[in-house]
Amino acid sequence: MYRIGIDLGGTNIAGGLVDKDHKIIAKASIKTEASRPAEEIVSGIASLCRKLCDMQNIGVTDVDAIGVASPGIAESSTGIVRYANNLPFRNFPIADLLCRELGIDRVSVENDANAAAWGEAVAGAARGTSNSVMITLGTGVGGGIIVDGRIYSGFNSAGAELGHMVIEHGGKRCSCGRHGCWEAYSSATAVIGMTRDKLAECELEHRPTILGDLILKKGKISGVTAFDAMRLGDQAGKEIVETYISYLACGLTNVVNIFQPEVISLGGGISNEGQALVNALLPIIRKEQYGGGIVAQTDIRIAQLGNDAGIIGAAALEI
Amino acid sequence: MYRIGIDLGGTNIAGGLVDKDHKIIAKASIKTEASRPAEEIVSGIASLCRKLCDMQNIGVTDVDAIGVASPGIAESSTGIVRYANNLPFRNFPIADLLCRELGIDRVSVENDANAAAWGEAVAGAARGTSNSVMITLGTGVGGGIIVDGRIYSGFNSAGAELGHMVIEHGGKRCSCGRHGCWEAYSSATAVIGMTRDKLAECELEHRPTILGDLILKKGKISGVTAFDAMRLGDQAGKEIVETYISYLACGLTNVVNIFQPEVISLGGGISNEGQALVNALLPIIRKEQYGGGIVAQTDIRIAQLGNDAGIIGAAALEI
Repeated sequence: MYRIGIDLGGTNIAGGLVDKDHKIIAKASIKTEASRPAEEIVSGIASLCRKLCDMQNIGVTDVDAIGVASPGIAESSTGIVRYANNLPFRNFPIADLLCRELGIDRVSVENDANAAAWGEAVAGAARGTSNSVMITLGTGVGGGIIVDGRIYSGFNSAGAELGHMVIEHGGKRCSCGRHGCWEAYSSATAVIGMTRDKLAECELEHRPTILGDLILKKGKISGVTAFDAMRLGDQAGKEIVETYISYLACGLTNVVNIFQPEVISLGGGISNEGQALVNALLPIIRKEQYGGGIVAQTDIRIAQLGNDAGIIGAAALEI
Repeated sequence: MYRIGIDLGGTNIAGGLVDKDHKIIAKASIKTEASRPAEEIVSGIASLCRKLCDMQNIGVTDVDAIGVASPGIAESSTGIVRYANNLPFRNFPIADLLCRELGIDRVSVENDANAAAWGEAVAGAARGTSNSVMITLGTGVGGGIIVDGRIYSGFNSAGAELGHMVIEHGGKRCSCGRHGCWEAYSSATAVIGMTRDKLAECELEHRPTILGDLILKKGKISGVTAFDAMRLGDQAGKEIVETYISYLACGLTNVVNIFQPEVISLGGGISNEGQALVNALLPIIRKEQYGGGIVAQTDIRIAQLGNDAGIIGAAALEI
């Protein structure tokens, strides 16, 4: 049994042919070219599917199902993408069109963060659990919620926007228009902003930092620069990381208090910090969570599937 | 078909005999006397159940099922109350004991806020929906989550603690130990605190207020005093209500962005403000929510069952 998972992004479309054990046995990608019409992007996805099948010498009709993970609001019940930022999809029936293009009848769509959470639930850090949440710490803060072994996205498919939970009333402006969203404090973008601010503060105080040296050497600030500086004994790096961890732990404790999932898995660029990140978060979460010491506790884990989570999750969507 | 719903509180235990249409046809209550042993409290509940049956001239064995709504962490899968603040239940098998006392075999337990949400879902403001959230604005801020027609409380029955979602990082200390919980800003207790602070501020400035007159007349501050003053044209009352609404809307928008439920129902003392409360909240929620204008929107409603929600929800628990 083969399935195809498609991870549709603003820059690239990645696809994988996936076997029954959720292993990717063939992988390929194309440029999205997001400025072209929606129909052409879907034709591109269809070509990508054919290519994946060719790579394994099977026909498209040998594929059991195709899942497409899309940014924005993707309606799994109808196969329609209602809205996707930076992509030309507005109430667009991706699933129907892809079925027609390929002459098959089992295509699903899902929001990309939800698909990634589903991937981790079926084959990654939350495998074997029925209730889990995945948080992606990348350009934004993405959320995916699994309840009783199914993706939960609300009655209108627009839910699970955990990054747009305000944790600081009236705080920093978020890209969504609200002020004080978790995303504005815990995304990789946010930690880059904190690093830039701290650097400016130190320069103003003529305070020499390893952080400054690192940035000079690499020519840019990334989401892990502050972590790297901290590991080299830099006080400025330590201060940034402590602030970042405090906000990240705050949002994660909220997720625990709301969902009490068996597992929260952390993905995205910042999760490359690995177990050290979990170890820094846990004391705060354990201290602040509801029911601590009385009932079983949520496990905080680093996601296991990396950039493949979307492909594997899309391939494993319910049909 | 009859069922019994029990709403176990720190002061009173209220019970109702409920018919198949979720109507309470007999109602009675006893004092909890929370200092007595857990076993005695359960015996009290058993007597209350017998009394309710006597009131309708039926036998206890004619009752199809009994549900008990308890504060704290109530495990529906086992019938055990793991922990209840102000009550002597610690890993206590309420369901088993009540079955033995009454010679029946269908008793369920559930957290009281969850039971109230279930009541509103089966017979109140969220009737006819599969995904809803109830928020109770009382001494604390309680939450109950209904997903796909079932109560959601996490893998350890301790979830849905929506009041203990931080909305102001490092903010006011909450009874749970965290700082900045929604409960610390949006409970009736919180608005009473805001009213007291505003009164002190106005007195310090020798600023006469209708608010002050009202409090003098009633001899106390309640959760609705500021609302009453505002309606009488008082500026101080208006300022308190605006601050309160701003925090309440913030938390409710979080709930929308996370769950996108069909309905959020508002219960508890503050919800007696009725549709005026909803009307004050809606412009903020509609402006800030994710997916506004693209997909169907969460309806914000005043809960319909009042203090009976727990009884009706407990009686309707899955068995």
